[in-house]
Amino acid sequence: MSFADHIRACNNFNRARVVPLMAGERRIGWLRRDNAAALARFPAVFAVEPERVRLVAWGDVDAVSAAVDEVVEALVVENRVPKWRNETFDVMPRWGEPPLFRLDRGAVPFFGVRAYGVDLNGYRRDRGGLHLWVGRRAPDKRVAPNKLDNTVAGGIGNGYGVAATLAKEADEEAAIPASLIERAVPVGAITYLMENDIGIRDGVLFVYDLELPAEFVPQNRDGEIVQFELMPALSVIERIRATDDFKFDVNLVYLDFALRHGLIPVDDPEYLIVASGLHRPLD
Amino acid sequence: MSFADHIRACNNFNRARVVPLMAGERRIGWLRRDNAAALARFPAVFAVEPERVRLVAWGDVDAVSAAVDEVVEALVVENRVPKWRNETFDVMPRWGEPPLFRLDRGAVPFFGVRAYGVDLNGYRRDRGGLHLWVGRRAPDKRVAPNKLDNTVAGGIGNGYGVAATLAKEADEEAAIPASLIERAVPVGAITYLMENDIGIRDGVLFVYDLELPAEFVPQNRDGEIVQFELMPALSVIERIRATDDFKFDVNLVYLDFALRHGLIPVDDPEYLIVASGLHRPLD
Repeated sequence: MSFADHIRACNNFNRARVVPLMAGERRIGWLRRDNAAALARFPAVFAVEPERVRLVAWGDVDAVSAAVDEVVEALVVENRVPKWRNETFDVMPRWGEPPLFRLDRGAVPFFGVRAYGVDLNGYRRDRGGLHLWVGRRAPDKRVAPNKLDNTVAGGIGNGYGVAATLAKEADEEAAIPASLIERAVPVGAITYLMENDIGIRDGVLFVYDLELPAEFVPQNRDGEIVQFELMPALSVIERIRATDDFKFDVNLVYLDFALRHGLIPVDDPEYLIVASGLHRPLD
Repeated sequence: MSFADHIRACNNFNRARVVPLMAGERRIGWLRRDNAAALARFPAVFAVEPERVRLVAWGDVDAVSAAVDEVVEALVVENRVPKWRNETFDVMPRWGEPPLFRLDRGAVPFFGVRAYGVDLNGYRRDRGGLHLWVGRRAPDKRVAPNKLDNTVAGGIGNGYGVAATLAKEADEEAAIPASLIERAVPVGAITYLMENDIGIRDGVLFVYDLELPAEFVPQNRDGEIVQFELMPALSVIERIRATDDFKFDVNLVYLDFALRHGLIPVDDPEYLIVASGLHRPLD
């Protein structure tokens, strides 16, 4: 393993294997060719052409969402999509624009629409240097079970903003009170583009740092994290370099933390690979 | 103006306007087509083909450097290259690999080989928030005269490493003593790809943050900076948003500083443009 391996794994997107999903003149997703073909039997919702798929369902956000949801139901029956059924994401050509429709979270990678999330580095400054509160994901998580994870991480569901999602997830995942989460500092975003078993994960993670007081110990409330451990940040980075113990994109978030806090020396042979590998330009 | 304008200006590279400069099977530069054509009369050094130029000069680093330098002399006579004559850059396929040859700094953009530099954010933490020591470039600088610049910035010349360049430039440009510069924290790198009047600027800037004590005032020794001013970091960012007062790539370095220090709120409409626009992936 190396830092580069993790960056490559999260950016294994291959343009030749996909076609764009278009809404009017704007691309809103990437469909793997097998996924595009599976949409051909829903011509009232999607027009499947050789080198693109067009969203043709007509109407307001509710109408388009309902039309797409019928397609998703059929894809769930075919086992192409693991439906979440309790959380939808807004589909927008660009972040902050009005949503075109809402999409069940489980179907997001099938259509390759951009998925936004928050990620919080909860850290402590001890005499021995920076320490990170690292969680372990529950064994029943569909994505990356048992892998190590950040203090707080979660997708931005329909209707939630970035800060509201952070506060909600911080409460549910780590019992971080509002008075503490207010001090979290937004420090950028990680972007990556990855093919997975379902389709394309076009990931954008809003990253926050939060210095936690010595007496604070995170406690999970929602069952998604089974354990928290305070680890020296340098050990986290060496473990990332050597293993696959962390969830795929959490490797990138911690590498960004390490870089920003001066924990990777400039003479590390992978310094520029890390510095230029965590922020894939968004189109 | 907007943040995006500065990012676009530094990434106006257009693949259709260039051909790769190859050393064996590896690309080492980008030649604008007019620059490639100008190399056709040096067939012992460069083989100009329709869609690429190959370095064919033969021998060790000294021999290849001498052969390329003869070409550069001719290009200087033709006013295609402003020769520096006192500083050479190492040309390497990748950072840290053995150099293939040394190239006069003035000719670096003509060949579009990657240029490495250091950039130091010298800042102070006052009651009113973060302040940055901003320099103004001398009116006789060939690149970006009179523009605002960072506390310390400089190219990494042949034979110098990153840290050595930082220490040397910090002394020359801002009279920062060794005891202070040792505390500078490496926090990543900015990467961009820009066409300019000479050719292609493939820029990599190793970025450092240095918290400066209240009593320290930077003083220029080498005539490259005519004045330093301590500015509130938020004012620097608003001035970047509104004006062209800063050197092109310094806009990107300060945007990175602002992002890392939480000075750009996540609901800024340009947040993701900035977060994903400062680290163009290196090939």
